[in-house]
Amino acid sequence: MTQTTRVSAATLAKRLGPQPEGRDQPAYRTLADRIRASVLDGRLAVGTGLPSERELSTALGVSRTTVNAAYAQLREQGWLVSRRGSGSTVRLPADPAAPLRTVGNVPVSGTGYAAGGIFGWRDGIGWHDEIERAAGVIDLTTACLPAPAALTGALAHAATGLLPRYLRTDGYLPFGLPELRDVVAARYTAAGVPTTAEQILITSGAQHAFTLVLDTLSGPADRVVIECPTYPVALDAVRDRRRTAVPIGLGEEPETAWDVELIAATLRQSAARLAYLMPDFQNPTGALMDAATREAVVAAARPAKTLVLADESFRDMPFDGAAELPPPMAAWDTGSGAAAGATVLSLGSVSKSFWGGLRVGWVRAAPGLIQRLAATRALGDMAGPVLDQLVVATLLADPAAALAEQRGRLAAGAAALAGALAAHLPDWQPSRPAGGTFLWVRLPGPFATDLALLAPSVGVRIAPGPRFGPDGTMESFVRLPFTVPPDQLVTAMRRLASITDRAAAGSRTGLPGWVA
Amino acid sequence: MTQTTRVSAATLAKRLGPQPEGRDQPAYRTLADRIRASVLDGRLAVGTGLPSERELSTALGVSRTTVNAAYAQLREQGWLVSRRGSGSTVRLPADPAAPLRTVGNVPVSGTGYAAGGIFGWRDGIGWHDEIERAAGVIDLTTACLPAPAALTGALAHAATGLLPRYLRTDGYLPFGLPELRDVVAARYTAAGVPTTAEQILITSGAQHAFTLVLDTLSGPADRVVIECPTYPVALDAVRDRRRTAVPIGLGEEPETAWDVELIAATLRQSAARLAYLMPDFQNPTGALMDAATREAVVAAARPAKTLVLADESFRDMPFDGAAELPPPMAAWDTGSGAAAGATVLSLGSVSKSFWGGLRVGWVRAAPGLIQRLAATRALGDMAGPVLDQLVVATLLADPAAALAEQRGRLAAGAAALAGALAAHLPDWQPSRPAGGTFLWVRLPGPFATDLALLAPSVGVRIAPGPRFGPDGTMESFVRLPFTVPPDQLVTAMRRLASITDRAAAGSRTGLPGWVA
Repeated sequence: MTQTTRVSAATLAKRLGPQPEGRDQPAYRTLADRIRASVLDGRLAVGTGLPSERELSTALGVSRTTVNAAYAQLREQGWLVSRRGSGSTVRLPADPAAPLRTVGNVPVSGTGYAAGGIFGWRDGIGWHDEIERAAGVIDLTTACLPAPAALTGALAHAATGLLPRYLRTDGYLPFGLPELRDVVAARYTAAGVPTTAEQILITSGAQHAFTLVLDTLSGPADRVVIECPTYPVALDAVRDRRRTAVPIGLGEEPETAWDVELIAATLRQSAARLAYLMPDFQNPTGALMDAATREAVVAAARPAKTLVLADESFRDMPFDGAAELPPPMAAWDTGSGAAAGATVLSLGSVSKSFWGGLRVGWVRAAPGLIQRLAATRALGDMAGPVLDQLVVATLLADPAAALAEQRGRLAAGAAALAGALAAHLPDWQPSRPAGGTFLWVRLPGPFATDLALLAPSVGVRIAPGPRFGPDGTMESFVRLPFTVPPDQLVTAMRRLASITDRAAAGSRTGLPGWVA
Repeated sequence: MTQTTRVSAATLAKRLGPQPEGRDQPAYRTLADRIRASVLDGRLAVGTGLPSERELSTALGVSRTTVNAAYAQLREQGWLVSRRGSGSTVRLPADPAAPLRTVGNVPVSGTGYAAGGIFGWRDGIGWHDEIERAAGVIDLTTACLPAPAALTGALAHAATGLLPRYLRTDGYLPFGLPELRDVVAARYTAAGVPTTAEQILITSGAQHAFTLVLDTLSGPADRVVIECPTYPVALDAVRDRRRTAVPIGLGEEPETAWDVELIAATLRQSAARLAYLMPDFQNPTGALMDAATREAVVAAARPAKTLVLADESFRDMPFDGAAELPPPMAAWDTGSGAAAGATVLSLGSVSKSFWGGLRVGWVRAAPGLIQRLAATRALGDMAGPVLDQLVVATLLADPAAALAEQRGRLAAGAAALAGALAAHLPDWQPSRPAGGTFLWVRLPGPFATDLALLAPSVGVRIAPGPRFGPDGTMESFVRLPFTVPPDQLVTAMRRLASITDRAAAGSRTGLPGWVA
């Protein structure tokens, strides 16, 4: 039934990522672990056919015996099924895989498997499989809230008051609905960045906006500066487009997360086409870029001819009592004539502040760029959903109630998570963000992947540090969102506490849950 | 740039049509004229290799000297390029489309300008600029209807009955909503193609589905077979992705639009990765592919390892009393094991049958392919709008009322357009489609571009034939939709009649203009 797609040895080698350093176990075990991890995080879809042992040993530069032994262990443990003639195909262990069945592969309408996995592109998508929910699995791989109550009223207003006029047309507006472009432009103006509607392209979310920019303003092998750690799905898109990711490491202290010298030097030396930054409650660190740094980044980008993509998706989520936010990055993109507004593109979305089920985001840029982006957009999905845009235009015109509800949820979640960490995992060191929807937590050791692999066995899903970087590092970090209800956060921390020692011992292959 | 496919002498003879009677000129000139005409009409795609003089003289029953002289004249005038060894290939003396790219920048929602203009990507998108509407301009470049009344009831049901459950989640479902995947799968099953939900990926329209397939299953320079004429926005995407378009010329008679021999030869010779076909009321010709041809196309694609993308966007729009539709192309994609369902991908949409403002379409394919497409989708716009999907699931569960309203509009429009053409433009020859939303009209001369350039001056916009092909041919055709109200269609035809003589006189594609 399910068609097998065979992955080439070269592709698999890429998917497996870099060889981890000094593991105190045989090479075949490490290889089996890496393959298992790729399946679980969706880099390797269930049902994928693996290359022959000979091909893989060549591609990885390991002995054929190592690959043979790794495949054998995976078969033994139920991760691989081999048939004469048709080679070896990735699967999930049958048992005790009740949790696992809904981990690496996500039932959709009760049938079928997702190409992603818990830390794969599924991260940030979270389709909340109901079976799994019923099974009590707590999903901490996503960081999005349910919808605010105000959405219902906004929908009623949009449907009865605003929609009828559009129903008389064919409904295609590639640039977005005029009233929505107007209200988004007005928000930037109010935030200190004078903006007109022709500088706004409405997209289907910030990730859509990001890929439109990537596809329109950069080409294969072009360099794209990213923060490290960064938003995994954006990084996936950079790789998918065969751009070259140039990581800028972030400091751990929120006050000094961005090193201006480092950024300036990187822009100068890499001659990057684009720089993807999240100045407002950076994902995953939650850091907030101060005004001076924003100014310095724009000043450094201009001579390097690098376009700065400022993803401001979390801008509407500051904690209560947080200091005044600096203006959007675009506020410093001034200058005379063509120079003005030619360096910074702002990306926004309502997925975090309102609801991800409304597929509405935007790009703010110079009108000339907006036209080029709209042309790309029109060749892709052509236009955005009219109804969603009307709902969002209504909410953005009077956002107070919806934002208050979402911020209240986040405040309660943040307090519960901090408390649960202090109580159950006192040696874990959480970040101290001033906003956003998650904590970036330093573990007492480099065992994030082991922890993430173990977590499903106790009914929790987490996104390990390596998922947020390009090179398999950050093994000492996990991202923990506080978007799920407080009681679940407490339960989840208690569960994680119960497996931390085993994860730190790196003994996941010895677990009953992993051996058939 | 297009890939060379050699047309057999028999097929070329068919494409050239009957020998015209009593022309007062040497036979070689008549033959050259007939070849030139078929190039301009798109019956003979630019880049097609012609048969040897010997083969053609036999097939046409004319002397070899005649063919030799005809080829010589075509070479002289730049219509043919001959290379030792690779024979003679059709080309154009100049690209009539080229100067047009800069024509007609189109105001969008009062601010900004669309890239492309009226013959650019705007065609098929139609944002109904209000200023222009007020000015009484009748836009015939798009072929989509306003929304049916039933949409309002479906929205109320979706908002109150179905949405609340999703509002409690974060709303991301990259594969689409389970209830929508189920109902779409059920439609295929009912049409004779047993389908499960795991074979369905919900997309933001058919064009989105097409680009997902293009991006996931083909690479730069890969060959993509397209019909000629074809859907302009799909062709734009093929070029935008730097794929190589391999055009298959369609015959003018709806019964024989697709030449199985030509398609098989093209697939065999081009080793195309993909073939984008519109078997149901082809855009723009309105032709309907019969069952035998569907079977033959699938049979030819399998050994060529070409994936057939069957765009069935217009399948729900047959005229009243039209004969039973053949089953979807996928009905013939059978076989044992991996062969089954591995050749045909079906693309669908509700933009034509319901409303384009609902951004909902789908791909039907083998589960393994659906997983790969979903992974690409999740890196782009991540997921589709929940509300739109619920509205569409509601409409598709009981589509009778909505379809009846839209078909009624189309019937009235088709009658009005046919009548207006007969009354005001009697020497224009419209196609005789059995469904769809437009007529493909043969003009009394190759002046479509001139007509389209003049049309705005009398308050009409039309899409000229060259817009529907890869190489500026089909100057003797325009596509006229009957999706606008009957009275506007009558007015538009009267206006076009008032400029036809000027357009014909100013023709840049008449032969004198070409021999330079």
